Order: sequence, then structure tokens, then C-alpha cells
Amino acid sequence: MDSSTIVETKSFTFAEPPNELQLECGARLGPVDVAYETYGTLNEKKDNAILICHALSGDAHVGGRHNASDKKPGWWDNMVGDGKGFDTSKHYVVCSNILGSCYGTTGPTSTDPKTGKPYGLTFPIITISDMVNVQAKLLEHLGIEKLLCVVGGSMGGMQAMEWAVSYPDKVRSAMIIASTSRKSPQAIAFDAVARNAITSDTNWEAGNYYAKKKQPDRGLAIARMIGHITYLSDELMHAKFGRRLQEKAEYGYDFTHDFQVESYLEHKGSQFVERFDANSYLYITKAMGYFDLVQKHGSLKNAFAKVSGKFLVVSFSSDWLYPPYQSKEIVKALLDNEHPVTYCQIKSSYGHDAFLLEVDEMSRIIKSFLKEV
Amino acid sequence: MDSSTIVETKSFTFAEPPNELQLECGARLGPVDVAYETYGTLNEKKDNAILICHALSGDAHVGGRHNASDKKPGWWDNMVGDGKGFDTSKHYVVCSNILGSCYGTTGPTSTDPKTGKPYGLTFPIITISDMVNVQAKLLEHLGIEKLLCVVGGSMGGMQAMEWAVSYPDKVRSAMIIASTSRKSPQAIAFDAVARNAITSDTNWEAGNYYAKKKQPDRGLAIARMIGHITYLSDELMHAKFGRRLQEKAEYGYDFTHDFQVESYLEHKGSQFVERFDANSYLYITKAMGYFDLVQKHGSLKNAFAKVSGKFLVVSFSSDWLYPPYQSKEIVKALLDNEHPVTYCQIKSSYGHDAFLLEVDEMSRIIKSFLKEV
Repeated sequence: MDSSTIVETKSFTFAEPPNELQLECGARLGPVDVAYETYGTLNEKKDNAILICHALSGDAHVGGRHNASDKKPGWWDNMVGDGKGFDTSKHYVVCSNILGSCYGTTGPTSTDPKTGKPYGLTFPIITISDMVNVQAKLLEHLGIEKLLCVVGGSMGGMQAMEWAVSYPDKVRSAMIIASTSRKSPQAIAFDAVARNAITSDTNWEAGNYYAKKKQPDRGLAIARMIGHITYLSDELMHAKFGRRLQEKAEYGYDFTHDFQVESYLEHKGSQFVERFDANSYLYITKAMGYFDLVQKHGSLKNAFAKVSGKFLVVSFSSDWLYPPYQSKEIVKALLDNEHPVTYCQIKSSYGHDAFLLEVDEMSRIIKSFLKEV
Repeated sequence: MDSSTIVETKSFTFAEPPNELQLECGARLGPVDVAYETYGTLNEKKDNAILICHALSGDAHVGGRHNASDKKPGWWDNMVGDGKGFDTSKHYVVCSNILGSCYGTTGPTSTDPKTGKPYGLTFPIITISDMVNVQAKLLEHLGIEKLLCVVGGSMGGMQAMEWAVSYPDKVRSAMIIASTSRKSPQAIAFDAVARNAITSDTNWEAGNYYAKKKQPDRGLAIARMIGHITYLSDELMHAKFGRRLQEKAEYGYDFTHDFQVESYLEHKGSQFVERFDANSYLYITKAMGYFDLVQKHGSLKNAFAKVSGKFLVVSFSSDWLYPPYQSKEIVKALLDNEHPVTYCQIKSSYGHDAFLLEVDEMSRIIKSFLKEV
């Protein structure tokens, strides 16, 4: 396949009442719809499957196009396809929208069958572990008993780690890219402010905005702007924007945007509002904050005690959201268990977003790692 | 004087119409009230005056107490007093509230004499240069022709630089602490999001909230939370909060605060709303964004071409808002002009806030520098 390949989002439903999905928070949820896409062909031995886990705002559409007139291919199209990092001529790639999101998998925007209305804030709190359990059900449905590899960048990396820890028999290898075994207090703080921006928007209406005329658009846009700053590095922002003015020769001496970086953030915020749900943002950031392999297992060494297979850990030099030192903690814990792990710290000025942008370097590393597996 | 010394905020008014103050944006403003405090005694030669310039949310009350029952002394009390870094037994210390603020100096909360109502957004856009021109008028009023030293941390450092550049004959020395000759795009971005949080608050009412029941409290609180994250270092946040929960043994699995860092930010946000004005936050952050000695003078070397006297530049290793590299740019530009400058990079985990917290180290450096001057 290449970028022009037409792919289709499929849906799988499980956990029909009374067999609801047991969640980590104690609640039960069902039915659960899972939106997913597949690329390439599952071989007869069913041993060439790679699960790609997406980040906060991603979806199942990792590569190709939904139709010929699609302006953009999937979010990691430059990594997924014939001869690419995840080579679909050899591998069967699966990507599903995470639980709690708003792209087809059950989340706060979904209709609660008990009320016939969107869940909103009655949706239960979910965790990375719950997301992974949903993916496990999907793989069962697809007849995949063991993954060749589970991969994820950012929050996707948390899912990849959770897979390795919770389903050691089902994972032959894992790639953890620009991720962390637990968010730093600084990263938690940014998410907390972002959630505050959403819940302080008067149009949020305690999460019951779906049928309303006005949506919490400003709150969500501000949340996204905060996120965006943390995805870029100081260095990149100097190069990309500097202190250049936006279509002005001089300062405006008013409260319109003066600097390009202001317009960029505004644009990114507005774009995001068109495509994402405010409640999903709340639920997913909360899930990320709760993810903590140290707290759950006593230590990171303990967390990785029973993992099997090979690991690839990748960090980016200018990523200050999940800085290299956090990747090194993961590597150290794997080594403490005498577990095989390859660690690459890629020199990049792209900041956290590097995991989506350093395509050449990552393709090489990933291909070479998959060859070993 | 010591922390229990009772000080009084005084007021000085100038620029009575038709002699309004000419602002950099082209507008004229008058009358202008200036709230200020003085500490120690101006000697006969009038050559022992030190002007302290405050940061974004500061005020004229730099040391001592307003009355015996005051819970807290002034914001830099540990640096200003008998035998302290700024030794009031030797020096006459002046600190005035900046133009645009809400602590007694004219700003958007002040009454516009033309309408009898608060200026709100009809207040003209102000710059660091305007703030300094107001301070110059105050010094004239106090009979001070030449400052022994002009000092400032953070945005106060911008004012100190502006003093050195615009009034070279009036400045015998300048201390620029944890500051920058121009904000990075990342720092501009954080301020832009903060302003967005305020202007997106429906209670902001395009700045006309003063007579209303509801104030843009949430917007201002969110702005402050964003600021606070940038004032602390990642390292400090690990030490101060880690991932510790707030009065909980386990995750709450709801949208209340789980982590201490969340409660801390909420608390800081709420505290700030009690004491600061949302419009002032807009005006002052805009002034900081506009400050750019490179853009104004062609280069930083040019900016410092005509300065005189001695310079002390201090940065803090973990300050990522105005990182050490920005202080070094200032030092380099001074050296390029063959100008005497002492540079100290203090190792500290406090982040940007270190300029308020590294008291011992700073006292030593400041005393030794003032002895030389």
C-alpha cells in the first residue's frame, strides 16, 4: 500500500450487557464499539501482526486514505506502507481508536443505551489499562494470538508498555517511543490547566453540551494551545516562528495577534475544536495522568519483571514533555531485569512531536529492530 | 529597617492634562498616579538611591510591613533592609508600582477622568519603555538625578535594561536578574494562551467587568496557573510534589483533583484572583511581549552602545522561562561594547522563581557588586 491506498474504518462490538467490560475504576461498561483499521495481510501463521497504539488526539486511521478525494492520508502514513518502517508488504498492521476517544470507539460522545443520550460525564473514568484490554478483545476478534510487535508514541507508548506488562504472552516485541512510565508533575500540571480551561468554559455545562447550540470550543482550543506548546521545543519555536510578526511590519499596539506564534496557536486551537470532543479530552488526559507503572507495581523493575520479547525504546533530545531521562528509566528497569532492550536517543529539534516527524531516522531504526524480532 | 518596619505607600501624580504623558504606542495618558515606597534615607549628595523594578504581579511594597498586623512583609523583604543585600542603612531604596498595574499606579482599573469610569480596554497599550519613563518622572520628583543602581528580576530586569539604554546618564549601575532582552517565542506563546484564557472568560465582557457582579476569575486563575508552571522547574516540581496525591490514599477515579500539584495550581490561581486585575494581566503581558532590544536597536550590541556604568547579570541554571542563554546574550552584547559586566549563573533548582528565593547567594553577590560601584 502507499498513501493513495483506500482503507476503511471497520467496527467491532463486544461487552454486550450483561457481559459488560470490567473497568479499572470498578465500573462496568457495555456495549463497547471499537473502530479499527487494518493494513496488509495477516499471514497463515498469524504471526505478522503489529498493533499501533495512537496518542491523545489520534484515531484508527494510521495510513492511506478513506477515499480518493481525502486531502490528507492517515496520521502516521509516512511510517506505514509498502517498504516503509512498518512494511505492509510483510506485516499486518492494526490500529484502533482508543476507549474514551471520539473517533468511533465508545467514549463520552457515545449514546448510553440506558438513557438514549450521550454519556457525557456519566461515562466512567478509564485508564490506559482499560484501553489495552479493549485492544486485546479486538485482537481476539481478529484471530491474533500473539503480536509480532506493539508500538506506540507518546500516550501510545504507555499502551505499548501496558501491553508488555499485562499480556506478556501476547507480545513478541514492543516499541516505546517518546513516552514515559509515568507523567512528571510538570506534565500533569499542564494537563490539569488544560482540563480547567475546558471545565471553566460556560458552554461546557458540566459535560452536557452535546444537544446545546454552543459548545465549549474556547476551552478546548485553549487546552490544545497549552498542549501544542509542550509538543514543540524552544529551539524549534525559535527557528519556526522566532519573534516574527504576523502580516504586520510593526507592532499593532492592540490586543490582536502580533506574533506568528500567536496566530499559529490560535489556528491549531480552532482546527482542533473542529475535530475533537472536549469531554474526550478530559477523560484521556485523566487516563494519562493515572498511568504509573511504578505506583502500580511497587517499582519499575517489578513492573517489567515478567515481560518477554524484545524492546525498543526511542527518545528525542529536545522532547521536554517526556524527556529522554524518562525513557532511560524504562531502559534501566528492563536492564535490571536482564531483559533485551535497544535504546535510541535521536538528536532532533522537533521536541515531543519528533515522533511524528523524524521519519527517516525512525524508519531505519524500526526496520532494523523488526528484522531482529 | 527590618521586616517589622512599618512603611507607607505614597502617591505622586503628574501628566495632568494638557501635559499628558506621551506613550510609545502614540497615545497620550494623563493624569498618571504613581504608587511608590521608599526605604532608608537619601543622603545629602543624593547619590545612594537604588531603584528596584518589580515583575509582572509585583507592587511598590518591596519590604517591611504596612501595619503591625500585616501577615506578610513586602515581596523582596529578605533582600531589602538593614544589612541585607540592598542595605537600607546605606542606601535609599525606591520601588514604584508599574504603569498598567493595579496597585495604585494608573492602569486599566483606574478611573478615566474623561468618562468617570474605569479605563478597561480603553486604557492605551503600554510598553516597558513607558513604565521606565514614569519611573523617571518619579525620581525627578524625589530629587534623584542619578541612580546608584537600577535593579530588577524577570520583567523588572527588562525595566533595568531599558533604564540603562534610555537614561545612560542617570544610571551608575544596573542589575539584570533572571531576565531577557526579548522573550522567546515559547514565552510569548505561554502569555498568549494566558491572555486567551482571560478574554475567553464570558465574564470578561471585553474588559468592562468592573461594575458587574461576576468577574473573569476563572480566566485569570487559568492564566496564573500557566504562569506558575513556567516559574517552577521540572526538577523542583519532582521534589516539591512528585506524583503525590492530595489527601487521598488512592486515585479518585473522578474529575476532582488527585495530585498535589493540581491542588497547588488551583490554590495559586484562586489566591491570585483575589489580588490581581485581569485587564492589568493583559496589558502587562503585552508590554513584556513587545519588549525587544534587538528589534528596537538593530542588534543587542547597538542597544548597549551608549550605556555607562557597571552591570551585573544574574541567571539561574533551572530557569527555563528566561534561560541562562538569554542572560549570556546580554553579557555578550555588553562585552562586544567593551563594557564592564559581571555575570553569575547561580546553580538552583527553583526555576525562574529562584530570583525571589536564592536569597543568601544573591545577597552576597549584590553586596559585593554594590561595594564595587
